[in-house]
Order: sequence, then C-alpha cells, then structure tokens
Amino acid sequence: MGFYHYLTFLIALLFFAIAEANSNGVAIVRNINELAQDSYGIPGLSHITVAGSVLHGFKEVEVWLETFAPGAATPIHRHSCEEVFVVLKGTGTLYLASNSNPKYPGSPQEFPILSNSTFHIPVNDVHQVWNTNESEDLQVLIIISRPPIKVFIYDDWLMPHTAAKLKFPIFWDEYQIQPVKDEL
Amino acid sequence: MGFYHYLTFLIALLFFAIAEANSNGVAIVRNINELAQDSYGIPGLSHITVAGSVLHGFKEVEVWLETFAPGAATPIHRHSCEEVFVVLKGTGTLYLASNSNPKYPGSPQEFPILSNSTFHIPVNDVHQVWNTNESEDLQVLIIISRPPIKVFIYDDWLMPHTAAKLKFPIFWDEYQIQPVKDEL
Repeated sequence: MGFYHYLTFLIALLFFAIAEANSNGVAIVRNINELAQDSYGIPGLSHITVAGSVLHGFKEVEVWLETFAPGAATPIHRHSCEEVFVVLKGTGTLYLASNSNPKYPGSPQEFPILSNSTFHIPVNDVHQVWNTNESEDLQVLIIISRPPIKVFIYDDWLMPHTAAKLKFPIFWDEYQIQPVKDEL
Repeated sequence: MGFYHYLTFLIALLFFAIAEANSNGVAIVRNINELAQDSYGIPGLSHITVAGSVLHGFKEVEVWLETFAPGAATPIHRHSCEEVFVVLKGTGTLYLASNSNPKYPGSPQEFPILSNSTFHIPVNDVHQVWNTNESEDLQVLIIISRPPIKVFIYDDWLMPHTAAKLKFPIFWDEYQIQPVKDEL
C-alpha cells in the first residue's frame, strides 16, 4: 500500500470515527467558523445557526450566533418560546412591549444593552433588537426553546396582534426545509 | 429638595422602571459581571448561572457561563436533557461514552475542543469536559433544556449506570432551592 493510499485510508478512518460519534448525523464538535453564515435577506445581519432543530436535529433548544452591523435590527416580532440573549460584543437597544395591551403592542420600552450583559424576552412579548451604536458591530448569542421557532412579524408597534404575519419556517430554516419531492 | 435627595429620587425611579419591566421578578437586562459567581466546591471551576430555572424562573432553557482553570474538569456524568457548549476561550478535551453499552459507560472517546467551536452532548450519554490545556483557561457557554437539571454522577468510566449517584439539585441550584419552612 503506497503512502497516498495509506493517507486516504487514515482519512477514511477519521471520518468513520467522527460519523460513529454522531447523534442524528451531526458531528459532536464543530468549528463555528466553518458553519453556514448569511444575512438571509435582513440588511446588516450575519446569522449562524450554531445548534439547530431543522439543521442538526435538536428538539429542545436552538442556539444562534448573530452579528448586527451598525443600524441593523430584527423585525418587530413575537414568539411563544423562551429566548435568552448573551451579548458578546458591542451595544444596542432592546425595544420591548409587554403583553399588557390585548389589541396591539403599543409604544415599547427601551432597554440599553451593553457588552457582557444578558437579556431575555418574556414569552409572547413583542420586541425588536437594534444595533443603535453607530460605529460598532453588535454580536449576540441567542438561545431559544422548543424549536423550530414560529415568529409573528409586525410592520409597526400599532399593528394589531391579529394582523401580525406568521413567518414559518423562519428565514434561515426556510433554506433548510425542502418540500418533499414526488419520487415518481 | 437638595441635589442628593434629587439623585436618590432619580435612582429610585430607575429601579422602579427596571422592576416594572420584569417578568417573574427578574430584570430584563442584567450585567453578567454582577451575577453570582462561585466554584460550588468544584476545584478550578467558576460557574455563573446566566439564565436559570431555579434562580430566574426560566422553564425551558438554562444558560451557564463556566470557566475551567488548567486541569479543572466536570465530574463524569449524564443527564436526560439536551446540552450545547459554545467555546468562547481556550481549548480542552471532551470525553464522551456513547450509550451503546447498557451496563456501564466504558472507555470514552476523546474529542479535542478548540476556541470558537461548538459541541453537544447526545441525551443520556456519559461525558466529562476537561481543560487539558496546561496554561490557558477554558471558557464555555452552556445551554441545557428542561431545567432544573438532574445529573447522575460516576466515580469512573467503569461504574455501572445503576450505581451512578443522582445529584439534585445540582451544585449551584442547591444554594438557591431552600427547604420550605414551617411558618408556625
């Protein structure tokens, strides 16, 4: 067996060992730099699904790494899962409308968010995260429960809850959930 | 009203505004540097519950920030929740015994873990995270589902599954869960 054949054999063994260690076909250890990264149509956003339901088969938690360029923001939205943010870099503003108004979100409270802070979104509260820092990226790690997430999106804070548009699958899951094709 | 009275009044207003915005009594935005940090009896560990079930009332996810000094490790353990790690700093080794052996964990596989990587623990797999780097701290963000977590701890990799010791509440929750006192 020549050197290159031997090398190929070793690499095959390595892949086999990694595959062996998988649950649901996903490698146990993954390099975040090598994961898919895209704006998914949201200006100034970089989104990476670190651990996903649709992508990796997680059933109970999902983890995203998102970077917002100065001025970039999420849509105004709500969802019925728990959501925790950990701010890794930068600063920004959380706009949060408590669900006390039964008709529409109404004027949100503003929360300054700083580097090395954590914040959470109460279940079903309408919110928006905005990088209001003019010169620095805002990087956050986002944890949600019970994926895949169903999101209701508002055009503005006075839009009735009943008019909010369901976005499912969410932007990044849309790229992964493929319609089942008729094999005939 | 003097300046200091005015300042006190303003600070009180600020606290009121923060308290108003709470869900389950926990401020929406919190500075991670100001959260409780302890080793909870594990040598070389620094644990911070960023978002907790017992501490903050989360029902579906829990987030920890942990730093392992060189040589520090978790116990050998398993749990029935999903668990995702995001490596913020340092390197180390994950020891993981797949649950293919019905009697005891057996010799674990070794996975090198690098900075900016993510890894996950398949539900119920016995595992141990070890900072095997001799000179650098290992800092990870840990996400678990369905808190509060119930952990089964092993003395070694050959201990029968049935002999593993239930640790509930887990070390840090033990400091928070107080026995209900008889009020009479």
